[in-house]
This record gives sequence, C-alpha cells and structure tokens, in this order.
Amino acid sequence: MTSSALNFTLHKKEKHTGARLGTVETPHGSIETPVFMPVGTLATVKSVSPEELTDMNAQIILSNTYHLWLRPGDDLVKEAGGLHKFMNWDKPILTDSGGFQVFSLADTRKIEEEGVTFKSHLDGKKLFLSPEKAIQIENNLGADIIMSFDECPDFNHDYDYVKNSINRTTHWAERGLKAHERSNDQALFGILQGAGYKDLRLQHAKDMISLDFPGYSIGGLSVGESKEDMYEVLDYLTPVMPENKPRYLMGVGSPDALIEGVIRGVDMFDCVLPTRIARNGTTMTSQGRVVIKNAQYARDFTPLDPECDCYTCRNYSRAYIRHLIKTNETFGIRLTSIHNLHFLINLMEQIKEAIREDRLLDFRDEFFLRYYGEVKKSNF
Amino acid sequence: MTSSALNFTLHKKEKHTGARLGTVETPHGSIETPVFMPVGTLATVKSVSPEELTDMNAQIILSNTYHLWLRPGDDLVKEAGGLHKFMNWDKPILTDSGGFQVFSLADTRKIEEEGVTFKSHLDGKKLFLSPEKAIQIENNLGADIIMSFDECPDFNHDYDYVKNSINRTTHWAERGLKAHERSNDQALFGILQGAGYKDLRLQHAKDMISLDFPGYSIGGLSVGESKEDMYEVLDYLTPVMPENKPRYLMGVGSPDALIEGVIRGVDMFDCVLPTRIARNGTTMTSQGRVVIKNAQYARDFTPLDPECDCYTCRNYSRAYIRHLIKTNETFGIRLTSIHNLHFLINLMEQIKEAIREDRLLDFRDEFFLRYYGEVKKSNF
Repeated sequence: MTSSALNFTLHKKEKHTGARLGTVETPHGSIETPVFMPVGTLATVKSVSPEELTDMNAQIILSNTYHLWLRPGDDLVKEAGGLHKFMNWDKPILTDSGGFQVFSLADTRKIEEEGVTFKSHLDGKKLFLSPEKAIQIENNLGADIIMSFDECPDFNHDYDYVKNSINRTTHWAERGLKAHERSNDQALFGILQGAGYKDLRLQHAKDMISLDFPGYSIGGLSVGESKEDMYEVLDYLTPVMPENKPRYLMGVGSPDALIEGVIRGVDMFDCVLPTRIARNGTTMTSQGRVVIKNAQYARDFTPLDPECDCYTCRNYSRAYIRHLIKTNETFGIRLTSIHNLHFLINLMEQIKEAIREDRLLDFRDEFFLRYYGEVKKSNF
Repeated sequence: MTSSALNFTLHKKEKHTGARLGTVETPHGSIETPVFMPVGTLATVKSVSPEELTDMNAQIILSNTYHLWLRPGDDLVKEAGGLHKFMNWDKPILTDSGGFQVFSLADTRKIEEEGVTFKSHLDGKKLFLSPEKAIQIENNLGADIIMSFDECPDFNHDYDYVKNSINRTTHWAERGLKAHERSNDQALFGILQGAGYKDLRLQHAKDMISLDFPGYSIGGLSVGESKEDMYEVLDYLTPVMPENKPRYLMGVGSPDALIEGVIRGVDMFDCVLPTRIARNGTTMTSQGRVVIKNAQYARDFTPLDPECDCYTCRNYSRAYIRHLIKTNETFGIRLTSIHNLHFLINLMEQIKEAIREDRLLDFRDEFFLRYYGEVKKSNF
C-alpha cells in the first residue's frame, strides 16, 4: 500500500483476449480483479448480512451516494463514523456519484454548467447536486473508491447534445478533483461518457485520462442499448484506457456481459441484477436461469444448483425455496439473494482461473452453452 | 430418553411460587424448561435463519399445522423428509393442531361432532378438519410434540355453549389419540379449554388428564381477555395439572405474562409477538420497549439494548436499524427479529436462574420496574 488511497498491480494479461488479472489495494483491504461488486444501495445489500457477504467471498460492495444523501443523510453517516462502521462492513466500499440516479430517477431536472436542479424521487422536494456537492457527500460517506459527478445521457441522445455533455462532465470532473478532501484515503475515479459515438467516447477518454485519475469508470452503458452496441464501445474504448489503472464498467451484471467485459479488459463490475431478480425468485445456476416459482419445482427436493456450494444450496431444496418465495417469506429472498450473488462471485473466480490458464475464450463458449444453451457470437 | 416420544424430568420447584425447572427430552434433543418457543408459522421463523436461532439458544420452535396444510401441503413436507429436514432445523419442533386458526382465521365455519367445515382464509376454498385429519397432517409434518385438535371458544362465550364445546374437545382428543400413528416419536399433548368458567376449566382438565397425555396445553387464553383473567385461570388450573408432565400455555409471549405464567407453574410458551412487532420496528429491551422509528433514535449510535449481547446489539446502532426499518429494508426486520427473540429467550434464562435461587418474585418486581416503569400487582 502506497501513501495514495489506491494502488493497482497488473499481474497478467490473457494471451488471446484483453482480459487481465490485477490487485486493487485500498485502505480497507485488497481486491483481486476482475471482480463483481454486490450493490448495497441504502447501506445494506438487500436481504444479506455482512457476514453472509464475507462467506461468499464478496471483496467489495457498492453503495449509492444519491440514495444515502436522501436517507439517512451523508452527515448522519459521517457522524456514525462513516459508511463502513455504520453498516458493519470493514472491507472495501465504492460509492457512485449520484449522477446516474439524477438522470434515471429524478423528475424535471435542469442541467446547467453549475450543476443539476431536480426533484427528489421520494417526495418531490427540490434538490441541487453539483460536482462539489457530490464529492462532499462521498467524502462524508467515506468509501474507499468514489466516483466523479457526471452526466449520463441516453445511448442514442443526439450528437451535439452529447458533445456538450462530455465537455460538461470533464469540467465537473476537474471541479470534483479540486473539491476532493480525502485523496489520502479515498480514490476518486473519473467516469468516461460519450453515449454511442465513437469519436466522442475517444475524445472524452482522452480528456479525462489527462486529468490523471487513479482509476476510470465506463458510464453510459447498460442503459438500454443492445449488448452488441455495448461490446462495440468496449472494443474501442478499453484499448485507450491506461493499462496501469483499474477499469470499472458500471451497472453490468448479467453473466454474458461480465464475461464479454472481462474479455475486453474490464476489471470491475457492479449490478443490482442478482438481488433484484432474487426477490422474484429468479435464480442463476450452472444450467441457466431457474424461475423457482414454476410448478415443476414444487416437489423438487434437490438444491437450486447441484454444482453450487453456497449456503442456500448446501442447506435447502428447490421445493423449500419455492414455498418461501410463494408465501412471501423474506427468508426465501435471503436464500435466493445469497445464491445469486455467490453465483456471480464464483463466476468471477472461474474467469480468473481461465485467465490464469489462457483459456478464457474456451471458458466463455462452454459457459454460454451450459447457461444459455448456445454459444453466443461476439466479435472476440 | 425412554422408548416413548417424550420424557419430562422435574428438577426443582421454586420455594415461593409454582415455578419449576425441568427437562423435556424429545427425539431431536432436550429442552430446558421453562422455555419460550419462537414461532415459524410457514416452516420459517420470519426473517431468521436456523443458524441464527441456534446462536440465540432457541431450543425448540413452533410451526402451524393449518398454514402448512394449506401451503405447501403436509404431503409435500412428508415427501421432503419431514419438517425438520424441509426447513433445515434439527432441534425439537412443536406443531399446533390447527384448531386455533380454524376459529380465528377461517370464515363461515360449521362445527359438528364429526369435525369443522370452513373456508380457507387464502382463497375461500371449502375445507374440512377433523381430529383424525389434524393428527394425520401432524404425523406427516413430523414434529416432536404435536397438539390434539380442539375447539377454542371465546373467553366470554356463553356457558352452555362452552360446556358442550369442552365435551366435544374431549371426544376429539380421544379420537386423536386413536388416530395418532407415530406415538413412538411424536408426543401428542391434550389441550385444556373451558373459556373463563372455573368449573368447566376444572371439569375439562379432569376429563383430559384421565386420557393420560404425555403433556398438556392450556388453550383459550391470550385471546382478548384481560391479563388478570388469564392469571386467575392459571391460578386454579395449573395446581390440578399433573406435576410430572410439561404444561404449555399457548400463544403467550409478553414479558409480564411469561413471568406470571412461570410463577403459576407453566413450562412452555409460544407467541408471534416478538417477530410481529419487530416488523414494525418495535423492540423489547432491558429498559422497556423501544420504537425504533421514533425521531429520537435518528442519531443514536448506541446499541438497541446496551445490556444485550445478541448479534444485532453487538454489531449495529439504533441509528442504523432505524434507517433500515424506515427504508423498508428486510435486513432491518431481521435485526429487530433476532433481537426480540433473543430478548425473550434470554429473559427465560434469567427466570431459570431466579428459580434456581428461589428469588423469582424479587426478579419479577425488579424486571417490571425496569421494563414497565412500575411494579405491577398480581395476586402472587
């Protein structure tokens, strides 16, 4: 650990793809990359305890700046001793900037150079978020890795708008860097935007990279565009990103996109997907998705995934989990959430092993065949 | 452990009250009495895992025959290998008879000597429950202690009705004994009814005791009558109950009633209270109830109960729990549920200690003063 808040060590590049193995060191411990980060929006990974996250080898979790700002308030979290202490999680935490929520959740937003005026999604109260304010909130929350305030335009927003937007996001990034008061123990990442325009994506990457952030996030993807479109952006974007800094693809958590992202050189991912679908009883298994409410599982006394060694699969049957989900018992949601998170974390372990052995493309094909029933085509 | 399903050993009677210490041996382990039993209506103690129940020293849990009959079905539970295996709980389980739910939940019931015809509280489907059917369901579920099918009339129902009702419940008990196919590994308790009428209570106790059940439950209390009325029934009822058999007061779980019940010679209790109030954020602490949603706890970074060593109090603050409950996070409900159950289980530990030292009345007064702010009067 150097005196800076974050240290990244690149251990290996896979022979046939852009995939890599690395270690991110933070004040709350090290993260082996590539990594999937469970999302704990409101200072809790829904239905799951910190001990259960540790048991499934979660290395880092994400929490949401916008949501915590509204409830319980970043000043309260600061008074509690910071997010780690507040939620009883002593491993690394990453907070986003609130930018995405402002653009996806808030009503009647007004975007100006100074910042964004918008209404709370909870009570309609008028709020203002600027790069300085976002960083102040993140400083109060105290996560190990924090994000620069950005605008996240739609993938297909018109060219001229996006061109202005990336410049504004760059200005906001510069202001955020200046406002950041805890660079000794919080690593501030820059977010790369540019929607679906290659020249704007490359321009914005160049501008942001010149600001020398300790890590870079890829924003504006997984917002409704096709996976092909997303992979295409990664294809031309990651090669221009610094090799010696972590690359974080925001909001991505489907198994195929995780694998394709790693292949294209991404190190970090987060997504609410595993816990969100778990609440409806949809689970990810080595044989593909299992929708546990389906009648076929009523008397299925085998584990959710016979190849899984998570708490859920070691102790409970599909029939029991189905019963709990159908009767709206929260313990059922806990069991499916633990399983789904474990599934993605374990997938990352398998991916790392495949990188180590330079067989990631074979692993992808084998995994896709078992999970989706077909070897999906991608240009890698 | 004898060859019968249950063995009760009486270790000590307290000097100044009817309280006693005992051990109930079952095929799934021993229970030190007096004991509070957490309720797991649908084969899960709401929001709490089996491991968390073990951690808080829960010795036995209760599950509901009526609810499991409807969902997922007792035949399914049997096929799963029984309730213990289905829900991953290898310690003792007790099931009620469904009688109470038929009378409290179901619509348009028709009570006849043969059994009860009523409508499901879920979908209005017409159902029929008889003593034989109830025992058959309980045999399929496979709990260590099971209950005889009974009618549970209101505490103030008219005398003549209750007189007929207790006779019917006695007939049903006899039929249940005959129908019981697992007396080797399931102990069938008789339930004593009689509403608020002393002569009927004593008559029914006499009739049921003559049937020589291995244990007796006191039913028809905690159904809306005053606590004074409840204690009065216990005052005259427990002295006529066999000393060498466990006594179970059904549906009682408030701290005062637990203590007063033990004082009157009760060995076993169950109640949904601790988990039900936990879901609204109401908690039981050594200083009385704490309604965690109240604004005064917003920045209270101390534990829920400074004298408590449960998982919740060891790791989380009132401010954090309040935040989770206010944002409807299920982890908050887990934390309050764990705490409340631990509180009652720990209260029973303190009660046992007080019995051991023949100072239960002093303990009661001290506890009431701290918990309720006053020394409540009772005739003991």
